Amino acid sequence: MRKIDIFDSTLRDGAQGEGISFSVDDKLKILQRLDDFGVAFAEAGNPGSNPKDLEFFKRAKTLKLKNTKLVSFGSTRRKGVSVENDDSITAILNTDTEYAAVFGKSWRLHTETILSVSPEENLLMISDTVSYLKQKGRKVIFDAEHFFDGYKDNPEFALTVLKTAEEAGAELIVLCDTNGGCFPDEIGSITEEAVKAAKIPIGVHCHNDTGCAVACSIAAVKSGAVHVQGTFIGIGERCGNTNLSALIPDLQLKLGYGCIPSESMEKLTETARYIAEIANVKLAGSMPYVGRNAFGHKGGMHADGVAKEPKSFEHIFPETVGNSRNFLLSEVSGKSTILSKLKSFDKKLDKSSRETVRILEKLKELESLGYQFEAAGASFELLVLKELGRFQPFFHIEHFHVISTQSYGTKEINKANAMVKIKVGNRFEITADEGDGPVNAIDKALRKALEVFYPQLRKAHLVDYKVRVIAAGDSTAAITRVLIESTDGEKVWTTVGASKDIIDASLKALLDSIEYFLHIKAEEARKPTARKTSERIR
Amino acid sequence: MRKIDIFDSTLRDGAQGEGISFSVDDKLKILQRLDDFGVAFAEAGNPGSNPKDLEFFKRAKTLKLKNTKLVSFGSTRRKGVSVENDDSITAILNTDTEYAAVFGKSWRLHTETILSVSPEENLLMISDTVSYLKQKGRKVIFDAEHFFDGYKDNPEFALTVLKTAEEAGAELIVLCDTNGGCFPDEIGSITEEAVKAAKIPIGVHCHNDTGCAVACSIAAVKSGAVHVQGTFIGIGERCGNTNLSALIPDLQLKLGYGCIPSESMEKLTETARYIAEIANVKLAGSMPYVGRNAFGHKGGMHADGVAKEPKSFEHIFPETVGNSRNFLLSEVSGKSTILSKLKSFDKKLDKSSRETVRILEKLKELESLGYQFEAAGASFELLVLKELGRFQPFFHIEHFHVISTQSYGTKEINKANAMVKIKVGNRFEITADEGDGPVNAIDKALRKALEVFYPQLRKAHLVDYKVRVIAAGDSTAAITRVLIESTDGEKVWTTVGASKDIIDASLKALLDSIEYFLHIKAEEARKPTARKTSERIR
Repeated sequence: MRKIDIFDSTLRDGAQGEGISFSVDDKLKILQRLDDFGVAFAEAGNPGSNPKDLEFFKRAKTLKLKNTKLVSFGSTRRKGVSVENDDSITAILNTDTEYAAVFGKSWRLHTETILSVSPEENLLMISDTVSYLKQKGRKVIFDAEHFFDGYKDNPEFALTVLKTAEEAGAELIVLCDTNGGCFPDEIGSITEEAVKAAKIPIGVHCHNDTGCAVACSIAAVKSGAVHVQGTFIGIGERCGNTNLSALIPDLQLKLGYGCIPSESMEKLTETARYIAEIANVKLAGSMPYVGRNAFGHKGGMHADGVAKEPKSFEHIFPETVGNSRNFLLSEVSGKSTILSKLKSFDKKLDKSSRETVRILEKLKELESLGYQFEAAGASFELLVLKELGRFQPFFHIEHFHVISTQSYGTKEINKANAMVKIKVGNRFEITADEGDGPVNAIDKALRKALEVFYPQLRKAHLVDYKVRVIAAGDSTAAITRVLIESTDGEKVWTTVGASKDIIDASLKALLDSIEYFLHIKAEEARKPTARKTSERIR
Repeated sequence: MRKIDIFDSTLRDGAQGEGISFSVDDKLKILQRLDDFGVAFAEAGNPGSNPKDLEFFKRAKTLKLKNTKLVSFGSTRRKGVSVENDDSITAILNTDTEYAAVFGKSWRLHTETILSVSPEENLLMISDTVSYLKQKGRKVIFDAEHFFDGYKDNPEFALTVLKTAEEAGAELIVLCDTNGGCFPDEIGSITEEAVKAAKIPIGVHCHNDTGCAVACSIAAVKSGAVHVQGTFIGIGERCGNTNLSALIPDLQLKLGYGCIPSESMEKLTETARYIAEIANVKLAGSMPYVGRNAFGHKGGMHADGVAKEPKSFEHIFPETVGNSRNFLLSEVSGKSTILSKLKSFDKKLDKSSRETVRILEKLKELESLGYQFEAAGASFELLVLKELGRFQPFFHIEHFHVISTQSYGTKEINKANAMVKIKVGNRFEITADEGDGPVNAIDKALRKALEVFYPQLRKAHLVDYKVRVIAAGDSTAAITRVLIESTDGEKVWTTVGASKDIIDASLKALLDSIEYFLHIKAEEARKPTARKTSERIR
């Protein structure tokens, strides 16, 4: 089993992704999770270009990392400046990390057009920087920027850059496909040449601009690379970096390489979701291995097949990566899909049980009202629990009023106010709030009232809100279906509401989301050994 | 230049994706776009398992497709049933498509465990079905389900399945990695064996469960496959199918194969976004080639580099695929796309015209507020007409008030009332109406007031209403984008509105829809010979 070092750059290259902005606390939390999971390296910032990163490195020293080496990142020295006087090199040293990663140019186009330096000066910038950092006690990872494009343009030029970094004392050279335009076979054959030419280990850093970053990284590993860079959930500049949450199980579960401690594999899904949450990114349901729907089966035939033999339509067991099988309910799935879901609540239920018949009728009725449970597993679960008499209500809504004003003409005014009265046990709570639009106002008022009784609700919040209008005709009066996705930072659940009135539909989905969360938390408190929520949610 | 046929299954395998639900109208629209774009095949439904698909195939006959062959899909005959008596085979014949795709098993595990048939019966099911369809005049595409897993398990078994389909008269055999668990190198070498063994052309169908579907499809093409199946934006069961919006430019722009008419390439981005909009799927900003951020540069160094020399940090020119560099231009479409649209209003407009600059600025501003014009051609047209001073307002809104009440508890009451005051010329009209939900109430009140002046409005009504929430975070307060599709029975037009408040966003889209209709009708009345509205809409 060949060992491959995983180098996560979520906190550096990932931070270049659209809409990504990490606070120092965010970065510390993610670093801790990466260490718990067991990646070999975490590149966490560019102290020379971002002053916030300096504070991060100072605070990161207080974390006791067990598995992960922290890496600070920067470029080689600037042209015409001595390395001792280059502020960004000094900034790297000030982070006090054992490892430093520095990038230098290995494509002639860049030295000529972007840096405007001679090839000789470019090599000096590299050797000065690497040897200086080494002399100061750092282990140096040299990132050969644009290596593949550079090699295709001029192999000698590119390989001379490698040799220069090696001779200056680098521990490792990372071949970067900075523009992300390469394909696996070129990555494979060029990596092979670099491995042959170098005496020190070779790593690879790919981007996803052709949709092939994972395959390119695998090709490099097969050609001798022993270190792969990427970001845990694939975020990064443009189309993102190699998605490590796919690469790691590809290499370790399917291709026999060793990347992480084997007991970490079942934390893959929760780690990816946690990082997405902190990064405020919505993880696509279709993400390989970790997506909410990565093991979702919708077609009746596939659902039947998996029920008979999981291997028939699944390439690995979902539990291996901490994910779970998910039978999507839909017009194309049959009764058997629903039955296999019901069996997870009560093994004794079969297709002729009274409860099964009642639940199927209820589902049919709700579907005719515009509900769809395929993407709303939490609403489905609530429905079943209620029908089986296993749900204790947490609150009752007495009434709700929303007043929303749109004034146009001389000046535009949009206002929405909501007033709610709820009952919990024998106590009443009445309150109001305002918001951007009626749904937001309702959400705020309802939470305000409920948090008096259930402060744990502060942890749960919405991450997505989708509206679909069904049935054509006079469409603003057609049925509106609302899907709400919520999270408490670890788990994700989805609920549905349908009504002719969008406000009513939103409220129904919102109520399900809150009831589901309260129910799960109450169950966890009652039976601490119960199966974890992450296994049942969806 | 080797020719590769692109086979899009958005409307069949794509419909298996989580949360995807196409109406018959949705399917017809997407099919039309696929034909405009120029894919060779569109697989559009499984008439045997979904009765809605029968209506679709009936209506699809009225479309005059120029480039795309429509394909109906189903399985080989069931065991123990003669092919003439198999309802789903009959359903395929009833669609009257020139091509039929049928799938059969090529993995022993499946024949034994899932179907419970002997290998001989399995081969009979395949040959009966293929030869019967051929005898009925259909061209048959045989999908060898699980071919790669089947081949790895037992090459002879898998190849016998291929030969059987070939001898029964199939036009083409498609090797399917149904579970999506394979890697590019295995796909490549197994495809090579199949190409050697078969006398007829070979295609490939991959899934993205290892994150390698695009690379796997490329490997198959390099090994001799001449037909690639996938879905335009990668939607599909579990982790999705091969993403054609990445595969097509990979093959055609970068690897020198011929997939689509070359003039279609610059429609790639708008086609992907249109399909996403109809499917009500949020296209990831990081999608290769077509994502909003696929050519976005955040790092200062990268942005500077690209400004000096685009090739330095971009693997292709974004305009080639109708996308654009993010920090320079409108996020939505390249300047060239917009320019070519502007020229349809006024041939004299070029990229330096004052009007062009002003319109681009306006677009950028609206996009930053959440507008997107890809699927809202009527709103775009109105915006341009207004900026060119060619739009005469038909009415002004003075004010609007909406009161909506949701009472729960003992009895549920949902009520929405809207009051509106408008001005037309020097006359005022004030009125009110009630509706199912606030948007419906607004729609009804506004029409009631306007129809006093413009009775022709009675002909126009909404056919679809879509809501998308953009930007994550506290989701009920994020920006809401509403798309409204309207028709007067002959023409269809789409408008957009965006706001933090869903009611305000809906109203904006509604106003655009009404203004657009009134404008077009007024123009038609003025110049009876003017080009018909149907030519400019969408």
